[in-house]
Amino acid sequence: MVRVAIVGASGYTGVELLRLLLNHPRVEITCVTSRQNAGTPIVSVFPSLLGRIDLAFDPVDLDTIIRKSDFVFTALPHKAAMLVVPELLKAGKKVVDLSADYRLRDVAVYEAWYDKHTSPELLGEAIYGLPELFRENIRGVRLVANPGCYPTSVALALAPLLEKMLIDPHSLIIDSKSGTSGAGRTAKLGSLYCEVNEGFKAYGVASHRHTPEIEQTLGQLAGQPVRVSFTPHLLPVSRGILSTCYATLTQPMDTAQLQGLFARRYADEPFVRVHPKGELPNILHVRGSNFCNLGVVGDPRTGRVIVVSVIDNLLKGAASQAVQNMNIMLDWEEDCGLKDLPLYP
Amino acid sequence: MVRVAIVGASGYTGVELLRLLLNHPRVEITCVTSRQNAGTPIVSVFPSLLGRIDLAFDPVDLDTIIRKSDFVFTALPHKAAMLVVPELLKAGKKVVDLSADYRLRDVAVYEAWYDKHTSPELLGEAIYGLPELFRENIRGVRLVANPGCYPTSVALALAPLLEKMLIDPHSLIIDSKSGTSGAGRTAKLGSLYCEVNEGFKAYGVASHRHTPEIEQTLGQLAGQPVRVSFTPHLLPVSRGILSTCYATLTQPMDTAQLQGLFARRYADEPFVRVHPKGELPNILHVRGSNFCNLGVVGDPRTGRVIVVSVIDNLLKGAASQAVQNMNIMLDWEEDCGLKDLPLYP
Amino acid sequence: MVRVAIVGASGYTGVELLRLLLNHPRVEITCVTSRQNAGTPIVSVFPSLLGRIDLAFDPVDLDTIIRKSDFVFTALPHKAAMLVVPELLKAGKKVVDLSADYRLRDVAVYEAWYDKHTSPELLGEAIYGLPELFRENIRGVRLVANPGCYPTSVALALAPLLEKMLIDPHSLIIDSKSGTSGAGRTAKLGSLYCEVNEGFKAYGVASHRHTPEIEQTLGQLAGQPVRVSFTPHLLPVSRGILSTCYATLTQPMDTAQLQGLFARRYADEPFVRVHPKGELPNILHVRGSNFCNLGVVGDPRTGRVIVVSVIDNLLKGAASQAVQNMNIMLDWEEDCGLKDLPLYP
Amino acid sequence: MVRVAIVGASGYTGVELLRLLLNHPRVEITCVTSRQNAGTPIVSVFPSLLGRIDLAFDPVDLDTIIRKSDFVFTALPHKAAMLVVPELLKAGKKVVDLSADYRLRDVAVYEAWYDKHTSPELLGEAIYGLPELFRENIRGVRLVANPGCYPTSVALALAPLLEKMLIDPHSLIIDSKSGTSGAGRTAKLGSLYCEVNEGFKAYGVASHRHTPEIEQTLGQLAGQPVRVSFTPHLLPVSRGILSTCYATLTQPMDTAQLQGLFARRYADEPFVRVHPKGELPNILHVRGSNFCNLGVVGDPRTGRVIVVSVIDNLLKGAASQAVQNMNIMLDWEEDCGLKDLPLYP
Repeated sequence: MVRVAIVGASGYTGVELLRLLLNHPRVEITCVTSRQNAGTPIVSVFPSLLGRIDLAFDPVDLDTIIRKSDFVFTALPHKAAMLVVPELLKAGKKVVDLSADYRLRDVAVYEAWYDKHTSPELLGEAIYGLPELFRENIRGVRLVANPGCYPTSVALALAPLLEKMLIDPHSLIIDSKSGTSGAGRTAKLGSLYCEVNEGFKAYGVASHRHTPEIEQTLGQLAGQPVRVSFTPHLLPVSRGILSTCYATLTQPMDTAQLQGLFARRYADEPFVRVHPKGELPNILHVRGSNFCNLGVVGDPRTGRVIVVSVIDNLLKGAASQAVQNMNIMLDWEEDCGLKDLPLYP
Repeated sequence: MVRVAIVGASGYTGVELLRLLLNHPRVEITCVTSRQNAGTPIVSVFPSLLGRIDLAFDPVDLDTIIRKSDFVFTALPHKAAMLVVPELLKAGKKVVDLSADYRLRDVAVYEAWYDKHTSPELLGEAIYGLPELFRENIRGVRLVANPGCYPTSVALALAPLLEKMLIDPHSLIIDSKSGTSGAGRTAKLGSLYCEVNEGFKAYGVASHRHTPEIEQTLGQLAGQPVRVSFTPHLLPVSRGILSTCYATLTQPMDTAQLQGLFARRYADEPFVRVHPKGELPNILHVRGSNFCNLGVVGDPRTGRVIVVSVIDNLLKGAASQAVQNMNIMLDWEEDCGLKDLPLYP
Repeated sequence: MVRVAIVGASGYTGVELLRLLLNHPRVEITCVTSRQNAGTPIVSVFPSLLGRIDLAFDPVDLDTIIRKSDFVFTALPHKAAMLVVPELLKAGKKVVDLSADYRLRDVAVYEAWYDKHTSPELLGEAIYGLPELFRENIRGVRLVANPGCYPTSVALALAPLLEKMLIDPHSLIIDSKSGTSGAGRTAKLGSLYCEVNEGFKAYGVASHRHTPEIEQTLGQLAGQPVRVSFTPHLLPVSRGILSTCYATLTQPMDTAQLQGLFARRYADEPFVRVHPKGELPNILHVRGSNFCNLGVVGDPRTGRVIVVSVIDNLLKGAASQAVQNMNIMLDWEEDCGLKDLPLYP
Repeated sequence: MVRVAIVGASGYTGVELLRLLLNHPRVEITCVTSRQNAGTPIVSVFPSLLGRIDLAFDPVDLDTIIRKSDFVFTALPHKAAMLVVPELLKAGKKVVDLSADYRLRDVAVYEAWYDKHTSPELLGEAIYGLPELFRENIRGVRLVANPGCYPTSVALALAPLLEKMLIDPHSLIIDSKSGTSGAGRTAKLGSLYCEVNEGFKAYGVASHRHTPEIEQTLGQLAGQPVRVSFTPHLLPVSRGILSTCYATLTQPMDTAQLQGLFARRYADEPFVRVHPKGELPNILHVRGSNFCNLGVVGDPRTGRVIVVSVIDNLLKGAASQAVQNMNIMLDWEEDCGLKDLPLYP
């Protein structure tokens, strides 16, 4: 059994990592940290785990983490992660970092959209952990930057088109909608039930920090710089992201051809499911699972293609993708501990 | 008091017309029809109106409607409306038709997207009842085609830009999200609570019937044909539409300039509210009212403008806009009976 | 026009008072206070009111309130209210206080369930403002204690039975369920969307502070002390309270007899609606209105009566009942400004 | 691998049985029937299962079911089940029946609350499958009647008290609230999203068919007839039942004593979790799992005990309890295939 630590576990991603790892056959959870809940039994904060875990939260203390664990998931806010990750690596740990701190390769881009970076030397080493696109790079490495939720949904939606340059990379418009758990488990007025329920709004229009991450991955697939319009919205659901992606086709393709392209591209992927022609995905049909579902439509009237992708933002968009990355890093079966089917309804 | 009939009142638009008209100081509801509920007291179907209306539903009988009323709201499905509206006009009634049957001016377009039209001669006469764009045409006429919910949200969002040709009319992408009441009050599997709750999906991609209606209005504003990508989505809320509209600017404009343009355009409109720079609308802030709220952002990175508009799909998208049209047709104060403020939270 | 102040208006009750009073034909809002939002335009905090009010929040300053207003609604937390109300009365204002501070007549009971009381001399003067039970006491007075949301729903449900002593007062069990707005508009972890959505729980079992208020009113109706089991629950909706009340009948009565009793009791009440036999109320059918709907069932198997009552907790449970009280205090038409019908769906 | 059939699988219980059994290591799903969807691929009806099951729905044909399977879950409406179950038993199959048809031991009671029974001879044989109360009776039998959702939540809540006669069996009041999936996956007006969302209501007051089932189990525990007031309510959530149970204590007990009693009673039960003193359960903390969580409070003011229990109505209230019963019938580990932790948030 590999001894696993979760650093920064009092949020929604943290409780999902706990849920998944408690049922993972090859790991043992040995250290779970939380600055604000240190000393409190985990089940007092997360009664859903009652009876299944006896640990209390540890404080965020590097020595403790290093002593207790072999493999570490860091689920800290950006900036906090980069204070911890280099030390963990130095101590010989393997790390999946769920923050944004090691996702962008260009330190100037990171610093333009986020903050001063204190360990830029790791940006070249960290592998962007989107297995369906970069699986071979992940095997055996010691540091994986787990992708953002929106970027995961977008990259899987557009990869089949950009890999073959079937769309104009200047035409990309991405309209995304996320469940409220994406805003985190902190007491903010805007996240109150009565503010979100029966509401819907856009936010971060033309300025959301996932934009450069999306552009980096799409640019890599296209082999040229890509600039996108990206608009996130807040959905009155707990979980799920749906991204509607628009692009101009460089050659006429109908829905059947597009669907075939997508189906072939992902035929061997255990966690990407392409809907048959005429069917479109719903966030409800991936909730609680590591799946990404895709639907694609060609529009001869406008010459555009529309791709709709859905994931569970806390799972394929965070916790379960992190476990998938661990499985690949440690050369285990990729779906180990990830066989849960979506919880519908 | 003008005697008013509501024809086809057992849906959500019907109950909203009842609610509004019961508090309208210049009308009396004298006839309320429903094929399936004929003979049933209205309050048995709509307990929210308990104690405020004693009528039972009438069957859909033309003679009864004509005898009992002076002014008629037809809230029937398309095709059903065109069987009734010509007869009402012949009998000298004034009509606001809430179906799609008289919204499109070109019978060929109607028949391509809907069905055979049986009273095409009225298409030239019917006025498209979007007061903020076509107010003067509405005064005194006998037939107003009440706009669709999505088209209302889109036309108000894009009018300031298209009227001055500040955007490329070939670049328009419209990503709309509607509450579930838009699907009507009929027992369908897809409208069940457990199918909608915690879900979100696109539907009618590249094929929704509101597309030609949107294109007709935008084309009229632009003075040239317009072709749009329009994607509706189903939101897990009862009410509200939010449309996110993307267009390429024909000249550089920043958010402040764009906000100023919108604020001036709608300065005298009682029911359109433009948010200050940096604020964006939320469907929760118009729920239960006749307002349309607008927010606009310029994106210098991509050269695009993003406009976000919200309405209550049952009100500004249907029932209250119909009452607004009645008020204009009868030369009453335009906000008569429409002073309700949004119900938040 | 009477000049009205709302003291403590940054919560959900505050915005509802604003919404109602902006459309009330006999008052003008002249002062709106908020400690945390002082100086901010009201519409920045409540965009639903955009275009309808130009005021900014005032700080909670007694001189300002006294100078600007004739009539004051105090919507402060308990303890904060009793610091303000005596001063307002001294300055000759009329006050509806929406806190708990003047609801309980016995200072010992107040201090056992709440805190030290600093103006106990007003407890004897303050009138408990439940118009359907105590209307005549309200006329002309200067201080009304606006009832709690749960106690309003319970008192109206049980009054017809207790007034005639048709039930055993020792047998009362009250199971209540409230929408989340009842928890207020403050950033608390337990009020987050993801904590409430798809959840349901009991809280304050056998210890909720509305218990003595319920017992005071029921005891007054019964003419003897009453002790109840009262269990509140948190509903994943924004608004609405439903109370299910159980009592043992002192003589056999069937549903028809009970329904008749209730219908007669409330026949002349504009805001209480008794459902016909066989129908039961739903919170959705009173949302956005001042109505209380009641349904009653007799159960010959157990000898018990079950009464179900629903109100909108922010309206009949707070803001609109406060306006109703103002109307009575000032001898205006009781439903002035309160004619809104429920917003369904 | 045991070959398993699910008869009547197009409802929410059906899809949950599919989800659980697809990940159950000792069974293979070989036959899945649906009258209305016969011939349709299962994944067309349930896209959440996409990629994991290739079968199409079979028609409800006894020969096919018998030929293809060894163990059968019948998830049919009452009356439909009793047409199928006797034939399956005759053919030597083992059956867990999820309908009400074999839950009541007294045919007269069944016929008073339901319908004419056509195989009353099986009522004596069928075992009521609530493992925590009747585990030993379940081992090896061929027919288990899977308990109703409400009765499961109530029996587990009251067993510790009734087994020791610590409460007056005439004082029981049970106020239950269920998620909407309990109303089934059929297109009914009352189950529409807009009818349920933001709503809450009681239904079946003093007349719900689960009443005799509750009374049968409680009477068995008490060793004497029990008559309860049982009121179900409809919650605007997809899943979950919370039952609030009130009873008069026959001797004074405080919360600590009561919590201790419950903790001891269920100490060895893998699927019942008793909250520490001062904490109460929330349906969100059992969603997606086979757990029942319990909280208990003693109220010295009234001499009553209040027990709050929560389950997932589709799982411990239906599908996963059925799998638990299968595991016991076949002498497998009781939690085989049932290790899923709750999906929070």
